Amino acid sequence: MKKILIVGTGLIGASVGLALRANGFTGEIAGAGPREESLKTAQTMGAIDSWCLAADADAVTKSCDVILLCGPVLTILDWMQRLAPILHEGQLVTDVGSTKAQIAELAAQLYNQPGKARFLPGHPMAGKESGGAMLAEATLFQNAMWLFTPQPGLKPTALETDFRNWVSKFGANIADLDAARHDKLVAWVSHLPQMLATALSAQLEDALGDAPELASIGGRALSEMTRLGASPYSMWRDIAMTNTQPLADTLLALEQRIAHIRENLKTPELREEFARANEFRKHRG
Amino acid sequence: MKKILIVGTGLIGASVGLALRANGFTGEIAGAGPREESLKTAQTMGAIDSWCLAADADAVTKSCDVILLCGPVLTILDWMQRLAPILHEGQLVTDVGSTKAQIAELAAQLYNQPGKARFLPGHPMAGKESGGAMLAEATLFQNAMWLFTPQPGLKPTALETDFRNWVSKFGANIADLDAARHDKLVAWVSHLPQMLATALSAQLEDALGDAPELASIGGRALSEMTRLGASPYSMWRDIAMTNTQPLADTLLALEQRIAHIRENLKTPELREEFARANEFRKHRG
Repeated sequence: MKKILIVGTGLIGASVGLALRANGFTGEIAGAGPREESLKTAQTMGAIDSWCLAADADAVTKSCDVILLCGPVLTILDWMQRLAPILHEGQLVTDVGSTKAQIAELAAQLYNQPGKARFLPGHPMAGKESGGAMLAEATLFQNAMWLFTPQPGLKPTALETDFRNWVSKFGANIADLDAARHDKLVAWVSHLPQMLATALSAQLEDALGDAPELASIGGRALSEMTRLGASPYSMWRDIAMTNTQPLADTLLALEQRIAHIRENLKTPELREEFARANEFRKHRG
Repeated sequence: MKKILIVGTGLIGASVGLALRANGFTGEIAGAGPREESLKTAQTMGAIDSWCLAADADAVTKSCDVILLCGPVLTILDWMQRLAPILHEGQLVTDVGSTKAQIAELAAQLYNQPGKARFLPGHPMAGKESGGAMLAEATLFQNAMWLFTPQPGLKPTALETDFRNWVSKFGANIADLDAARHDKLVAWVSHLPQMLATALSAQLEDALGDAPELASIGGRALSEMTRLGASPYSMWRDIAMTNTQPLADTLLALEQRIAHIRENLKTPELREEFARANEFRKHRG
């Protein structure tokens, strides 16, 4: 990997640029995106060397070994459609999208064919409740999982191996899994907690209404349980759109679990629920 | 206040002892409780000067100006029953119980009468997911709310004012409110978040079952949303028992909210939910 183009220089994209530099990457890092301001910020921070607006990016994509697509899933799908006809065999496209089934499906259709660029779907499990290049950090991926959902049966190219090595240098732990399994798993451990925090925060806004300062009574516990309530719709819309059924399944299961607790506030069943929850926390250590 | 008896020297009780000392209290601090080990720990830490087992506590209760009842709500109600006949006018009993309606009702029946001790129901909004004297801190109440639900129409005694002043010195913010309103409010900001974390943790234990290490994929967000899953049943049983209807109301409202989100994963309604949640977080700064 000698030249990488980071498409979308928000929190994740800019952090990848910073992590590459911090870990000794001496090649060229270009950036592309829809907003000049975000690109300039990323450049000032040292996350990218040069940049161009998304509309003008075709030329630079042709000269890069690796193209990293960042941003909401629907935006990534759009870029996949746009780049497939202009890229060529020997190039690698990878991404950081939050859901993988639709991306992996499109990759099998438009990439990974003779003459076409290789596509390696990826998903670093790192983030903050707010986005933007300003919050980027070279250490964002340390001790985080970086999941890949490679197309079964494809032999990894040298560039793929190279990119995975950089990810390891970032301090991330790599795991490969099936795209559909990925989406079910993240529905449980990421999307469900987000939707719960959103539901709780929205409900409290209604319930406390005219006296939101009362929320301060809740202290640290409430702060934690609602922190993700600040997450932006723009990103989660695409997740909800592209992982609808797995997410709906987890939400329904949780509704039923809460109802069970509600119906057993005065019975020994409540003890079982606390014991089960305690066990989960024991594993998480 | 010259001599205080702290009944129950767990996290909160022992922290009150430490906070009194740290803020210049020069009187005597006695401790009482069911377990010698916990009392000895509190004494070693400097939270109490002396101690006796709960069974032997009658004599010492008579010699104290202030008796602070700590522990689960049902335990506090038991102590209220036990102490009412042996205490006398001029003494103050206060507590740190998590729900206030039943405690306030019993206080009006058994205390706050001519010849009887005064009872001031209280509730410091501080804690940790684990309990015990070992985790006690003199600074536990700094910037926390300490709620009181005094009986309407009663003029505060000098001892009450004295105790409130100590609470202020701990760095806590005092607010007085009606006991029923207290219970509804904490159902929203404390009990609902706890039950959600319990439901989520228990559900994840079931869903991830044989591979709980997969939860590590969830990162910080999941950690935060399930931290309270470690909370002990022993304390929450009493809260569920004594605040059943307000808590059930909040749980039902949240079930409906989650169902609404589930049914609108692909509609613009989801945007409204995120916007509402974002607003709540804006108020919370």
